[in-house]
Amino acid sequence: MASEYTPPKVWVNDTEGGNKWANINSPVSGARHQQGLPVGDHALQLYSLGTPNGQKVTIMLEELLAAGVKEAEYDAFLINISELDQFSSGFVGVNPNSKIPALVDNSGEQPVNVFESASILVHLAEKFGLFLPAEGAQRTQTLNWLFWAQGSAPFLGGGFGHFYAYADVKQAYPINRFAMEAKRQLDVLDKQLAQHEFVAGDTYSIADMAIWPWYGNLVLGNLYEAAEFLNVASYTHVLRWAKQLEQRQAVQRGRIVNRAWGEEWEQVPQRNSAQDIDKVLALRPK
Amino acid sequence: MASEYTPPKVWVNDTEGGNKWANINSPVSGARHQQGLPVGDHALQLYSLGTPNGQKVTIMLEELLAAGVKEAEYDAFLINISELDQFSSGFVGVNPNSKIPALVDNSGEQPVNVFESASILVHLAEKFGLFLPAEGAQRTQTLNWLFWAQGSAPFLGGGFGHFYAYADVKQAYPINRFAMEAKRQLDVLDKQLAQHEFVAGDTYSIADMAIWPWYGNLVLGNLYEAAEFLNVASYTHVLRWAKQLEQRQAVQRGRIVNRAWGEEWEQVPQRNSAQDIDKVLALRPK
Repeated sequence: MASEYTPPKVWVNDTEGGNKWANINSPVSGARHQQGLPVGDHALQLYSLGTPNGQKVTIMLEELLAAGVKEAEYDAFLINISELDQFSSGFVGVNPNSKIPALVDNSGEQPVNVFESASILVHLAEKFGLFLPAEGAQRTQTLNWLFWAQGSAPFLGGGFGHFYAYADVKQAYPINRFAMEAKRQLDVLDKQLAQHEFVAGDTYSIADMAIWPWYGNLVLGNLYEAAEFLNVASYTHVLRWAKQLEQRQAVQRGRIVNRAWGEEWEQVPQRNSAQDIDKVLALRPK
Repeated sequence: MASEYTPPKVWVNDTEGGNKWANINSPVSGARHQQGLPVGDHALQLYSLGTPNGQKVTIMLEELLAAGVKEAEYDAFLINISELDQFSSGFVGVNPNSKIPALVDNSGEQPVNVFESASILVHLAEKFGLFLPAEGAQRTQTLNWLFWAQGSAPFLGGGFGHFYAYADVKQAYPINRFAMEAKRQLDVLDKQLAQHEFVAGDTYSIADMAIWPWYGNLVLGNLYEAAEFLNVASYTHVLRWAKQLEQRQAVQRGRIVNRAWGEEWEQVPQRNSAQDIDKVLALRPK
């Protein structure tokens, strides 16, 4: 049983001392220091980190390039959140929410700031006319599952992942609450993928690219060391799909961009050209 | 301090006894009983409940009708989640995720199932060409904030609201974690609304309709009885905006559809015509 606790009348921020994220988390938003963002040569400038939300966008960009869309060439700069890069005046100017990923699209007359991973997916899909049908029932179905991903993953990441893997003290109630929801979400996906090759139906789409980095990584054992705890092996259709997508070259490329941890062959902290990925992937054991 | 806790190697569902939502929450998705959905006369059939996620859609539908879009006439049927209506075979057939709201659009040759509140907003906005620009920077900005809402509100609802208002036992750590995040989100909105009349800029949009039911209701004191705890009065720009939207007739109408609690003049459990709302609002004290 958890300890009894009576909240104060008005919340006070007295939690700094006991939490290792005390320097990141704050009830106040906005820039903490003055610093501009680096800018490369391409029209698309990405500021990100190779966590699941970041992977969504780099997988999409690599898929566009693999499909022959040369205008999808991009520069991807590392936003190191433990060094508080997300609170620079430059980053906040693009995304006032201080979360990765953020994109600046300089292809038009005025730069366009795009934030929230799924908004970036939609922006790129509509810009290049790929991976999201322009109209009809299949567009709606793709957006249904894209929004499902965005509303569901906070329970997996900010809920389950935090309390199971990151919180200073393990507590039964929140772990049970969010483990149950993570498993329910996996079961929803499993039933859908039992009937369809991809999440939104017969066609690979931005819904898959949004969902694979969270739920695909989870069942492949890449998230929170929770594969056994959540018995991910029982979601056989999610596993089939996760492995299938893992074979795509664009997924293999996109998942390692803006990463500065893991094996040597999966770290591309900064990407300014295809060669930045090529040379790192060449280090991968055969 | 919370009690020490060591999770088991494999999660087991042994939490039924101690939780008042035990009959709703489950690690397994899908239909629990065979029952079809009611169908009314209009092309748009909504299955929902007047919680914030439901209000988004009914506000949008009322805004469309207020703008003269006659094709936005709709039937809205109550999905009583405490009676497990969301687990009927009919509802699951529309939304395999068993969450309100869900919409069936019968205006085309084949019915189109739309689920996730924001997916419904986009579907209606694109169908009728209102409240979401068809292209350009303002479309991107509107989608940025729409996706911000969908990724942020789970921390307010499934996080803060659950642990502060609904959990059987109050625990300091999760309440502090999610109160801080709720306040940070309010601060992000406050800074945006200090510079712009509406969330995505100078124009009222589906981003406002997605955000008002959560953050507007929160600062107006309609959610979790948490106005004092979160010191919502300090977010003066969010309050200005929340009150401004509250004056809109479509917001006043949409917020009470599929509600079966509160004052007599704010309960329209089922809506098949405008008169269903008119006659209830007529009971409101002047």
